[in-house]
Parts: sequence; structure tokens; C-alpha cells
Amino acid sequence: MAEKINKNYKYKPLKALQKEEIVQGIVSCDTAILSRAITLLESVKKEDKAIIYDAIKSIPNPKKPSFKIGITGSPGVGKSTFIETFGKYLGEKNYKVAVLAIDPSSSLTGGSILGDKTRMEQLSNLPNVYIRPTPSKGELGGVANQSYETILLCEKAGFDIILVETVGVGQSETHVKALVDFFLLLILPGAGDELQGIKRGIMELADGLLITKADGENITKAKMAKSNYQNAMHLFPGGKNNWIPKILTCSSLENKGIGDTWDMINAFKEHTLNNGWLAANRQQQRHFWFKEKLDDLIKSDFYEKNNIKDQIKQLKNQIDCGDLDPFNAAMQVFNYYES
Amino acid sequence: MAEKINKNYKYKPLKALQKEEIVQGIVSCDTAILSRAITLLESVKKEDKAIIYDAIKSIPNPKKPSFKIGITGSPGVGKSTFIETFGKYLGEKNYKVAVLAIDPSSSLTGGSILGDKTRMEQLSNLPNVYIRPTPSKGELGGVANQSYETILLCEKAGFDIILVETVGVGQSETHVKALVDFFLLLILPGAGDELQGIKRGIMELADGLLITKADGENITKAKMAKSNYQNAMHLFPGGKNNWIPKILTCSSLENKGIGDTWDMINAFKEHTLNNGWLAANRQQQRHFWFKEKLDDLIKSDFYEKNNIKDQIKQLKNQIDCGDLDPFNAAMQVFNYYES
Repeated sequence: MAEKINKNYKYKPLKALQKEEIVQGIVSCDTAILSRAITLLESVKKEDKAIIYDAIKSIPNPKKPSFKIGITGSPGVGKSTFIETFGKYLGEKNYKVAVLAIDPSSSLTGGSILGDKTRMEQLSNLPNVYIRPTPSKGELGGVANQSYETILLCEKAGFDIILVETVGVGQSETHVKALVDFFLLLILPGAGDELQGIKRGIMELADGLLITKADGENITKAKMAKSNYQNAMHLFPGGKNNWIPKILTCSSLENKGIGDTWDMINAFKEHTLNNGWLAANRQQQRHFWFKEKLDDLIKSDFYEKNNIKDQIKQLKNQIDCGDLDPFNAAMQVFNYYES
Repeated sequence: MAEKINKNYKYKPLKALQKEEIVQGIVSCDTAILSRAITLLESVKKEDKAIIYDAIKSIPNPKKPSFKIGITGSPGVGKSTFIETFGKYLGEKNYKVAVLAIDPSSSLTGGSILGDKTRMEQLSNLPNVYIRPTPSKGELGGVANQSYETILLCEKAGFDIILVETVGVGQSETHVKALVDFFLLLILPGAGDELQGIKRGIMELADGLLITKADGENITKAKMAKSNYQNAMHLFPGGKNNWIPKILTCSSLENKGIGDTWDMINAFKEHTLNNGWLAANRQQQRHFWFKEKLDDLIKSDFYEKNNIKDQIKQLKNQIDCGDLDPFNAAMQVFNYYES
């Protein structure tokens, strides 16, 4: 029986968190502290970030890394329902499960992401499941980077499995792929038109395709979709992990295909543990975020220091008129501030 | 009958090019000057870059933009042969054609890219076709950015069509897509295993798929591949240009399917001219490169000024040991040099 997580929901006055409080809270998997720590990560205040970054340094590494599953699909595909069903399945197997959402752009797509928490009621009542809903607003670009830190916090809190929901638009494929071990794409049964809502390129990231809502009248359509995708997948370039993406059907309504999905993910885990990809990929991901973060710090320092938004806008206009080419425009901004 | 380009190949002592010489050379489409101007772009010397950037500012914009076609596919798919055949076809239609190669990583893949110029002999003999072979060596990262400038130089020299060959590995999809109007993926007939050599994600960039070597014993396989891809393509999310990628077969050997390829590209051009995507995309590309270039300048300034390669390597080791997390490592580098 897995250790329970510490759902300490009783009211406490929200004094600013201190470093030691965070460290102890994360080590004991106190989800109230975890939530507030994540809020600090999302804060735009430099003091907040300094505290949480400092705390993270002092939190010991978990005994074993979490297994991170990215879940995406177009709005309406049934992501929330699937996550609720799948999360419950994992929770009942006594895994400690964290459910996170990353989506800098949900407002653009109209799709809510972990938004309707009423649907998650059963899941959130499980003692070993933690749900972190969408940050209420995210600065584009910023959120993607904080996602990595958020996941790391959950990892240090000792979760076995982290489900990372993403809408699959807005973020770059590279960024999303750099967050998770396994990437699951949910697809509606049908002629493929439903895919219009997701970003091109997402399909080729998927380690598994799951055709949802395979129940009632949809069953025939779902089976056909499965066979179509099966035929299509072998036309695709394989990933470096040497894993051929699997295609399954499921019904969250009838609770079908959920165990199969977990079996597939376990098969992937075993496969990539054995061929060394899982460890190598996690190392690459850490290096990627190191570089990404450093680049971000350097760039935002330049942009903030110089407050050049207006100038950039004006130069874009000049580029649009054909008066200036993009790289001379870039040199102009750069030289102006550096010289 | 289109104007000829100025293939001024007689020997001249290679005095350093002056700005005025470049401007006049490009305006008169003198390919000897064009080649040397591109060499300046590829130079690592700041003086060289300063001259060519300054010159570009003074070269008037072309009467109409070039139509830029990206061509990719795994090694052995027949890219060079196709480009030779297709280039000749376009050249004989009196288009002014430039053939460029971008590939920062050909040494990694073993695929030569425009390398075997003997195969291009007929093409390079055409009076209105200019071929720029691979830069002999490229610094990773740098080349992608110079590709845009190289293409712009050709555009200002008045080429109607620019064929941009890329191996499709190494570069990010975003960067390649930001260089061209139409993206053509060459595929060998077969079971799809040949796709192993190209990068995941490339498939979904394609505006057209061309199954090569559809001749002799291959014809049946090619037809089957066409039908397989046809079935697969409708499962894919469509691009913003609202164009459904077409799938064709060709034989460069028997000169078949070349006209069809051109017809497809023309249909795409008409489609995207009409729906406004072509112009909008070109504007986005210019903004993308402006931002990209500025970011590059800011980052390389920081990296060069501080000469932090060793430090980065050391921090990566610390990250690998689990002593440090990626973003605290990034902060450490940044704060060290900024404070």
C-alpha cells in the first residue's frame, strides 16, 4: 500500500511561505504547501521566485523519478473525462498521482483544460491523487518554462506518476516533448476532421494514440479509425526510442481500454528502460531546460533593461514596408543598446 | 523569354568585394558576385558580415518575390537527381532558377547534399540556372540563420524560383518552414522503413509528397505507396494554409511526373495567393527571422563575452549527478556574469 499524500486542507492564514516550510512541506508531500509553492513559481515577483528556487535546491532528490505522461488532444476529445478515469484507475492501484495542466493558450482555443473541476470530483477525493488546475492566466512563453519546475516540484514530493495535460497548441513540440517520458494523443473516432483543432506535428510526437469515446454507436467508427491509424503509423519516421507507437481504443464512460492504456505505457517504460533511452532522454531534457532557461534569462534581461517593445514594433513596420530586412533590423536594435 | 542571368565566370583576382560592387552585381544578377556575396555571409569575420549586411540594405527589392520551394527527403531518395531534372524543367520554361542547399549536419547523416556536382552538370550549364552547393563546413546553428540571408540575396538578384534543398535532420522544423513557401517531401516507394532517415515531424510540414523512382520494377510499389499515403494524409491535422497535401509519383530517370509536380506547386501557389496565406506567411517569416536574429545576437554576445563554455560543461555534470537542477544552474551562470 502506497504512502498517502498529505492533504492538509484546513484553513491557515496565508503568511508568505518560508524556505524551510516549503522544503518540509514538499518532503512530506503536503499538497497545500505544494500548491502554494507552485503559485510562487508562477509569480511574476522576483522575490517569490528567489524563495522557491532557493527552496528547490534544498529539497533532496526523490528516491526514484516520477514517470511523466503527456496527454493531449483537440477540444472535445474527452481529455478531462479520460484523465479522471485514468487517474482513478492509477489511484486505486495505490500510485501517488499528480495531475497538472500546461496551457499558455487555452483562451485562444476555447477548450477548457482541467477547467471543469466538478467532473474531477471523484478523482480529487482520492487520498493519493493531487490535482493542480490550470494557472488562471499565463504569460505566453513563461508558462512553458515553469512547467518544468512545477513537474520537478511534484517529482521531489514523491509522486509516482505525473499526468501532464496539454492542449497541444501554442507550445512548441520541442518544449512539450522535453517535459514528459511518454506522450499520449487522444483522438475522436471519425474521418480525421477532428484533428483540425490540434497542431500539426503533434501526431508525430505521439508514443501512443488513444481513440476515445469508443462506446455505443461510436464503436464501429472507433474500430475503423484504429485500423486507419494503424495503417498510417508505419508510414512514419520512428523516434529515437525505437518504439513503434501503439493505437488503442477506450471508453471512459464504460471504463473500457483504461487498463490496456496502462499496459501499453508500462510496455513502453520497460522497452525504453532496457534500451537506455529513458535515462538518456531525461538527461537530454535536463540539459535542454538548462540551456533554455539560461537563454531566457539572457534575452529577458536584454528586453527588460532596454524596454524596446515600441522600437521592435516600429522596426516590424519598416520590415513590412520592405524598407528594411529582418537581420539588419535586428542588428540595428542590438547595436543601439550594446554600443 | 526570360532575361538571362549574368554568368560571368572569367577569372578575376579576388580582391575583397566592395559594397558598390556587390550592389551592382546583385542587381545585374551576376552569379560570380552572388557566390562571393554568399561566401561573405558565411564568413565568421565581423568585417565580412558588416560589408554584406550594409550592401543588402542598399540593394533594391525585387519587382516580385521569388517563389521558394523546400525539398527534403532521406539520403538515397534521389534528391539530387530530382533537383537536376526539376531544375532543368523549370530552366527550360525560362524561369530564372537558383538552387541552394542548407544542411548544417550532412556530415552526421552521411548524405551528400548537392555534393556530387557532376550529376548536376546539365543543370548548371543552363544559362538561367544558378547552383550554390553546400557550404563546405557550417557551424551548427549559424547556417540556418544565414540561409535566410542567402535566400534574400537570391531574391534580390531576381530569381523567379529558389529551390532549397535540405536533408531534414538537424534543423528545427520551425526554421526550415520559415524559409520557404512550399515544402516538398521526397519518399522512396516501399514499406515506409526508408523514412527512418528523416526527422520526425517533417512529414507534417509537407505541402506535397513525391514518391520517387517510380520506374521499372518499382512502379507497383510506388503506386501502392501513393495510395497508402493518400489514406494516411487525411488523418492529419491540416495546416493554416487550408491546403490538403497532394501525393504524386515521379521518375527522374524517365522524366515522368515532373510536370505534374510543377502543376501541383502552381495550384498551391494560386490557392494560397487567393486565401491570403502566402502573403501572411511571408510576413510572419520576416518577423520570425527578425526575432530569431536579435535573440541570436543577444545570446552569442553573452556567451562570447563571458567565455563560459567550461562553466556550462561543469554545471551540466552537476545537473547529471543530481546536485543541481537545470534552472538553478542557469541562474547561477547568469547571476555570476550579470552581477
